[in-house]
Amino acid sequence: MFFFKYPKEPAAMGSWTKPTCKCCISSAVQPLVTLELTENINMETKQWLMARIQEEKIVGGTELMVHPGEDDDGNMLLVSASHHVLLRAAEVLGLYKLYKDGSMISFSYRDRRNFQNSDNINEFLTLAERQFIILHTLENIKAVDEKYIPGYPTITLYPGEAIFNRLRKSKILHTFYPLHDEELLTELGNHWQSHRNLSLQPIDSIYRYFGGSVAMYFSFLEYFTCSLMPMAIFGIILVSLSMDTIDKCILFSCLNMIWSTVVMELWKRQSFVLAYTWGTMQMNSQFEEPRADYKGLMGTNPITHRYQPYYPAWKRKVKIWLVSVPILCLFLGFSLYGMFVFFRAEAWVKAYHSENDGCWACALYLPSVLHSLYVTSMNILYKMVAKMLTEWENHRLQTSFQNHLTIKVLVFRFVNCFAALFYISFYLQDLELLRKELASLLVLTQIINQLIETLVPYLHKTFIGKGAGLKKATMENAPDIDKIKLQGQMPPFPGMFDEYMELFVQFGYISLFSCIYPLTAMLIVVNNIMEIRVDGLKLCHLFRKPFNSPAANIGVWQTAFELIGFLSVITNCFLISMSPQVEEYCTENNITPKNVLIWTVGVEHALLAIKVILAFVIPDIPQWVKLRIDRVEYQSIQALKHKLAEADKGHSRETEEKGTWPDGITQSDSNESSLHMNNRQLNLL
Amino acid sequence: MFFFKYPKEPAAMGSWTKPTCKCCISSAVQPLVTLELTENINMETKQWLMARIQEEKIVGGTELMVHPGEDDDGNMLLVSASHHVLLRAAEVLGLYKLYKDGSMISFSYRDRRNFQNSDNINEFLTLAERQFIILHTLENIKAVDEKYIPGYPTITLYPGEAIFNRLRKSKILHTFYPLHDEELLTELGNHWQSHRNLSLQPIDSIYRYFGGSVAMYFSFLEYFTCSLMPMAIFGIILVSLSMDTIDKCILFSCLNMIWSTVVMELWKRQSFVLAYTWGTMQMNSQFEEPRADYKGLMGTNPITHRYQPYYPAWKRKVKIWLVSVPILCLFLGFSLYGMFVFFRAEAWVKAYHSENDGCWACALYLPSVLHSLYVTSMNILYKMVAKMLTEWENHRLQTSFQNHLTIKVLVFRFVNCFAALFYISFYLQDLELLRKELASLLVLTQIINQLIETLVPYLHKTFIGKGAGLKKATMENAPDIDKIKLQGQMPPFPGMFDEYMELFVQFGYISLFSCIYPLTAMLIVVNNIMEIRVDGLKLCHLFRKPFNSPAANIGVWQTAFELIGFLSVITNCFLISMSPQVEEYCTENNITPKNVLIWTVGVEHALLAIKVILAFVIPDIPQWVKLRIDRVEYQSIQALKHKLAEADKGHSRETEEKGTWPDGITQSDSNESSLHMNNRQLNLL
Repeated sequence: MFFFKYPKEPAAMGSWTKPTCKCCISSAVQPLVTLELTENINMETKQWLMARIQEEKIVGGTELMVHPGEDDDGNMLLVSASHHVLLRAAEVLGLYKLYKDGSMISFSYRDRRNFQNSDNINEFLTLAERQFIILHTLENIKAVDEKYIPGYPTITLYPGEAIFNRLRKSKILHTFYPLHDEELLTELGNHWQSHRNLSLQPIDSIYRYFGGSVAMYFSFLEYFTCSLMPMAIFGIILVSLSMDTIDKCILFSCLNMIWSTVVMELWKRQSFVLAYTWGTMQMNSQFEEPRADYKGLMGTNPITHRYQPYYPAWKRKVKIWLVSVPILCLFLGFSLYGMFVFFRAEAWVKAYHSENDGCWACALYLPSVLHSLYVTSMNILYKMVAKMLTEWENHRLQTSFQNHLTIKVLVFRFVNCFAALFYISFYLQDLELLRKELASLLVLTQIINQLIETLVPYLHKTFIGKGAGLKKATMENAPDIDKIKLQGQMPPFPGMFDEYMELFVQFGYISLFSCIYPLTAMLIVVNNIMEIRVDGLKLCHLFRKPFNSPAANIGVWQTAFELIGFLSVITNCFLISMSPQVEEYCTENNITPKNVLIWTVGVEHALLAIKVILAFVIPDIPQWVKLRIDRVEYQSIQALKHKLAEADKGHSRETEEKGTWPDGITQSDSNESSLHMNNRQLNLL
Repeated sequence: MFFFKYPKEPAAMGSWTKPTCKCCISSAVQPLVTLELTENINMETKQWLMARIQEEKIVGGTELMVHPGEDDDGNMLLVSASHHVLLRAAEVLGLYKLYKDGSMISFSYRDRRNFQNSDNINEFLTLAERQFIILHTLENIKAVDEKYIPGYPTITLYPGEAIFNRLRKSKILHTFYPLHDEELLTELGNHWQSHRNLSLQPIDSIYRYFGGSVAMYFSFLEYFTCSLMPMAIFGIILVSLSMDTIDKCILFSCLNMIWSTVVMELWKRQSFVLAYTWGTMQMNSQFEEPRADYKGLMGTNPITHRYQPYYPAWKRKVKIWLVSVPILCLFLGFSLYGMFVFFRAEAWVKAYHSENDGCWACALYLPSVLHSLYVTSMNILYKMVAKMLTEWENHRLQTSFQNHLTIKVLVFRFVNCFAALFYISFYLQDLELLRKELASLLVLTQIINQLIETLVPYLHKTFIGKGAGLKKATMENAPDIDKIKLQGQMPPFPGMFDEYMELFVQFGYISLFSCIYPLTAMLIVVNNIMEIRVDGLKLCHLFRKPFNSPAANIGVWQTAFELIGFLSVITNCFLISMSPQVEEYCTENNITPKNVLIWTVGVEHALLAIKVILAFVIPDIPQWVKLRIDRVEYQSIQALKHKLAEADKGHSRETEEKGTWPDGITQSDSNESSLHMNNRQLNLL
């Protein structure tokens, strides 16, 4: 960890806004966020931006501390904040923190001394939270009376426009990223690697360092891998004893279907516990500040009474249903059409090849290659379109934006990944081909993925890393600003989408086709054990530190995994009913195909019902969490009553004389447990 | 409406506890609830009971007003309450009321002047609410230091035992019921009858007079009947144009399936609006007081910090899953077995009759008669068992007790009503028999029901009512207490279960077998239009006034109706696929039965998916209600912060000297919109 030292005489440096309150006085300030401006930044613009960041809240500033990074190009700004600014912003953001009585309540600046650890800012607000607070504060700087960006008269501003958004769009602000804390990072890395067994990832340290969404992912990855182990062992036993008779297979599938429900329900409970202890669970999205790109007419929020942009929800719905959904369907159509063309082409090429045998053996692979090129380019194109559409839908909250983007891409990817398998299993009804395809997909994609994921870090370490290492050695005493610049040169963190997608596809292979290939779970467990290390390494050393986003759960992914669970009942039931063993059994026992199908449908419906009942019976929130939340809710209602009554007190004193209400009662205690009127006489019979 | 007049000199009467505060002084008190004690009640017991009711809260009393009904037997007590006692109890119960700013918030006694209408108690608390408050207060009288009930040394009490419960069980308290308010009742009756069109039932007046659950039922009945009308008209058109070709039938069924989802989702929204305006929506069940029969170790409620009995939830769950569910299954088994025996017996009797023709024609009906006797007795027996089981499960809240009882009886009744129809349609696959059975069931049961429901009131009016009318005429100037006694002689209101069950069975007929008999909806609309009048009449004139229970929705019935919706997709799809027209079409076009089934299953799954998506897409709570609830929630959180900070203020002043936190900041305003530090210097570059 490095600090910018305060000079003895403030005037000597002058670039850090020195906090004036006693408790904020510290000889060094740790920079939290770096802004990278465009290279030939206009001095006027830079000064104006720094002024706007440092200005008092009352004139539209943020009161953050800003320091011009003393780099060669002079295009960097380092931002930090005093403890009090951080704490006040934490209240505005509605962060939940541990109160002295052990419950999580919405942080209150006035009452801060009663929150646990609030006297140590580094303990109280995690690094990720502090950086998120700064991000959020910066993104909420609004234009006040500027007509344009000083130094760039062509880039106009309207009153209330988010300045940072404008700067970013006009490329004046190149990028901005939170800074690594080397000390903490080393500690976290050691902690992560030292635990050889799976179940002891330092989730809490990850949360403190990287924030909610990253920690939630790693927690889910760990949970998912652990919960796969029984299935993996069971699968190995089945295969190694070569007990793949049909009844064993049915048993295995049924177990698998129940398992998938129980696993996802229990995960929901666990994620509630995590979110509760992190304080992200109760952050009511309605009270959240809108995201920076949110456009709308400025107005007073009817709930919080803050001055915020507003965009009607029905317009968003119209956009989603009339534009986004049809475009998604169009892309799905293209993708499916591509798949059919591929199957046709392959069949044709095979036929052609067997007729005129020997010529151009490599042409056999041409359809596959062309198809994968087509799928890849469609994937890239669609992701861009989805991003634009979601941006255009103008979601108010970052979480809702993220969820809508995820759904769009998820559905498309799911169809791309599984359409061929569904085609093989239910249209061609060729279970042998399905098994081969599944095995090759599992092994191939996993090997390729792992290779890419492990090789890239390795290559990075040996080649670029060596260079960096050399640099580091020479830079040990070099200006810290160069270290920061090095962080900026790393690629930005691409988000957790691909990681979740990988797990989602795995879950699909395990659940949807479990009866076909019982070894799936085992292969995936092996893959995931490596995955945990590789993802950790990537996150710590290969990418820029991402900004934390508070995550209460895994969002849309929970629903997606649950849907796969339901789909799996349907696929497994029909796959089993189509298997040659069942057919054999039926012809032996004179059962018509229609009756087999009736039985299949019956069993399928029963299993679906069991899944629904299970999901319903397992409570989503653990009892103790619910108890604590209810307690705070009850206290809040009581406090509201108290506050309203207090506010009315002055008024009541005035009107007392008019005699609407008797005096003695208004001032009596409102404590419900001792409702008693004063000196009432008992008139017994 | 009649009142007990206060005598000029309080000592002259002495039996009403006269309130001492100015605003409660009124020359007459309207009795709200009557207690009917056993006939030869011990004077000591009566005096003790009155004392306990009148006593101050602080010594374990309720501060209600009690008056010995001056009847001949001397076994009645009339209970009322002063305004302040009612208002204080309304706060304890957590009633939500309209605040001056138009939002519904938890009523606060201290802040009462800011609630709308709070200066007029009859306007502010509905009659139903006032009576519910008294019921609740009475039921919560706990034994303090009595070892036994005075006058009955054999009936022991333990400390903290609910006295009323004990009195009721030992038959000392014969019954207690809320009293009708003749004036309001006449007004309501006129209002109800004057509106000849359906859609204008005075739901709000019903709510004010009878309370939430009754008003919710009538609102649902009205909604359900109105929403059936399009289906009824469509069905009539189909039949009258004799367009019962298979594709029309399929169209009709599909419409029906989508309709059932949309109707139930929209009802959910409407019930939220109703519950919000009634203030029953946000009553968090966790904060409710436990029901009187709830047993458990006394302890402090961890949420509200009130001294209450506690019974662990896991014990209840064990009881439910290990005892109640198996017993339900056992009864279902008996019932189904009875059905099979009936079908066998009928077939045997028919065969026997056709062999030895002519002899004992009436014996043909013997199986039916025996079976209906069996079903009826099973129904009665099971209802008793279910009540005992639910009592034994020891539910904390009245709503949860009611829901568990409803589920138990509901499942049993559903199986009894529909098992035969399912047997006919899917085992015998005899659609003609199904159609005949359905038509006869619809017409017969409805005619019988309506006859019973209309004849009984009519007979009551002409015979008993005439007597009462005569009595009334002579009693015009007779002591009011006799009028009250007359109310006690009416049968107690049996609850809404049978009314809902009727609607549920109707919904089952419409949804599950819509494709078989398109006239169902029309018949049911006709029935329900009559039903509304008959139910209203029954409630107003035939039964004792029921105690109100606050209802936020129709409870388990919502889920039950939704489940029927899903089941209907399954039944309709398979019924259509089994129909002779489809079979004909298939044989013409050479489609194998297996392929028909595959198509059916495909369509069924698609329809189920559409239903799930529809239910997901239609938001449960209307936007404006959600907005208001969020606003109150936000205010509550802010108020809690404020209160905690206030509570800490004194403490903070003391510790200020130690200098942990600077003075200027602690006392600054916590208003987030103007977060500014005092006099901070801007150090520009």
